[in-house]
Amino acid sequence: MSNQRVVEVVEDLERLMLDFVRKHHITHAEYRAATDLIVAEVKAGEESLLLDVFLEAEATDVENESNSGSTLAIEGSFYLPGAPEVTGPAATMPHRPDEAGDALIFRGTVSGADGKPLAGAELDIWHADAEGLYSNIHPGIPDWNLRGRIKTDADGRFAVRTIVPPPYEIPKDGPTGIVLNALGRHFFRPAHIHLKLRHDGYVEHTSQLYFEGDEYLDNDVANAVRDGLVLRIESGEDAELAQRFGIAGTFNTATYDFVLVEEK
Amino acid sequence: MSNQRVVEVVEDLERLMLDFVRKHHITHAEYRAATDLIVAEVKAGEESLLLDVFLEAEATDVENESNSGSTLAIEGSFYLPGAPEVTGPAATMPHRPDEAGDALIFRGTVSGADGKPLAGAELDIWHADAEGLYSNIHPGIPDWNLRGRIKTDADGRFAVRTIVPPPYEIPKDGPTGIVLNALGRHFFRPAHIHLKLRHDGYVEHTSQLYFEGDEYLDNDVANAVRDGLVLRIESGEDAELAQRFGIAGTFNTATYDFVLVEEK
Repeated sequence: MSNQRVVEVVEDLERLMLDFVRKHHITHAEYRAATDLIVAEVKAGEESLLLDVFLEAEATDVENESNSGSTLAIEGSFYLPGAPEVTGPAATMPHRPDEAGDALIFRGTVSGADGKPLAGAELDIWHADAEGLYSNIHPGIPDWNLRGRIKTDADGRFAVRTIVPPPYEIPKDGPTGIVLNALGRHFFRPAHIHLKLRHDGYVEHTSQLYFEGDEYLDNDVANAVRDGLVLRIESGEDAELAQRFGIAGTFNTATYDFVLVEEK
Repeated sequence: MSNQRVVEVVEDLERLMLDFVRKHHITHAEYRAATDLIVAEVKAGEESLLLDVFLEAEATDVENESNSGSTLAIEGSFYLPGAPEVTGPAATMPHRPDEAGDALIFRGTVSGADGKPLAGAELDIWHADAEGLYSNIHPGIPDWNLRGRIKTDADGRFAVRTIVPPPYEIPKDGPTGIVLNALGRHFFRPAHIHLKLRHDGYVEHTSQLYFEGDEYLDNDVANAVRDGLVLRIESGEDAELAQRFGIAGTFNTATYDFVLVEEK
């Protein structure tokens, strides 16, 4: 059974692409090099990275135009449902005993557009380790490392301990890296924490957060940094947090207050 | 290091696609549904089938415009290098003892544009079995079944025994089939024999041949049938061929004379 939206969009895309092949006199060898890259990309575990680098931010911006909640950003290629729940007053992301990277307490609130705190919202976080690698995607990392789900408390607050990730370098020798190299582009995204945020009755929120001072904020290969998504890392002492998370001395915190949009 | 052709083509494609996302207000969920389909397609073993159905014929036509040899056609998604050589006067494609389908002797000649026969040209053939399935791609079929390479003799002649393949139905429940279904299109290609033809000093020739009377000749879901690529099946008795291939009674033959283009 045909689907009117698919017919409209895919038939237009088909016309555009056929015109494009003709306009540039794309040879069969060039066409096959392109499809081989896409096939190799998936087989190399890069999933949809190649298309995401070029296009995902635009599809997110289309939604930001009519979005009254916190700014949306790209999901990226490595989301997986089913991350472990991390709970308790010292909620900590799954990590190795010797996990490299500076400790970070990421905390904040979740509320509706009316400012009412949302208790029991689920914040699903995933990010790269200090080597720029993702668990369940790149080999040699325990499953679900630095992937976790945390719930807001009765006042809509959350706080979770993790590490500050580094800028993310797309593998230079992989299929996506080969394309970026041929284009003369660099391979870096600014450091980022991926997240999805859910609460019954509200639209699921997908975004990512960056860090002030990152050299790739204005030069993201995926062109996906937007205003209002940059965290400030505060370094200092906080006796209450230090006690709660069992950390001694100076440590980093970063705060973000989310606003969710009610479902229509 | 950047590559000028890649920069020109990919940057134009990037602009086109960003405009397309904006023009149709593609949401992130729609974008992700599209990339998920491409990832699922590769993981389901369909390789580049989805793009090939829509675009490959156009890239082939671009080359046909300036091609003075036999007509080119699409490679399709299931070519594999390294098929077994089939040799001898009764050269027969690798097949199962109980291979279903009507026997076919496919024969012809290979020559240069000057009409000079080309000895030792390699004809690399692959096609579906009577169920419409390809070896090395679809499960339950011996490797290299109905895939083989045959060489022309001193007079540029070849003859190989195989079966007449049926129209090819793209798997309805696979990722490519899901898209075709949403578009309200059917799933069929006319029956076809895939081939690559090689000879030192000549441009490698990729094409496919169809059969007169096929109901999908004018209605190929991949829009890849071109003039000069349709075989006529002759059914009758041929004492010399019958003896050579050890076939009794009536059988099918189909003839095609290839013209290769010299490398520049």
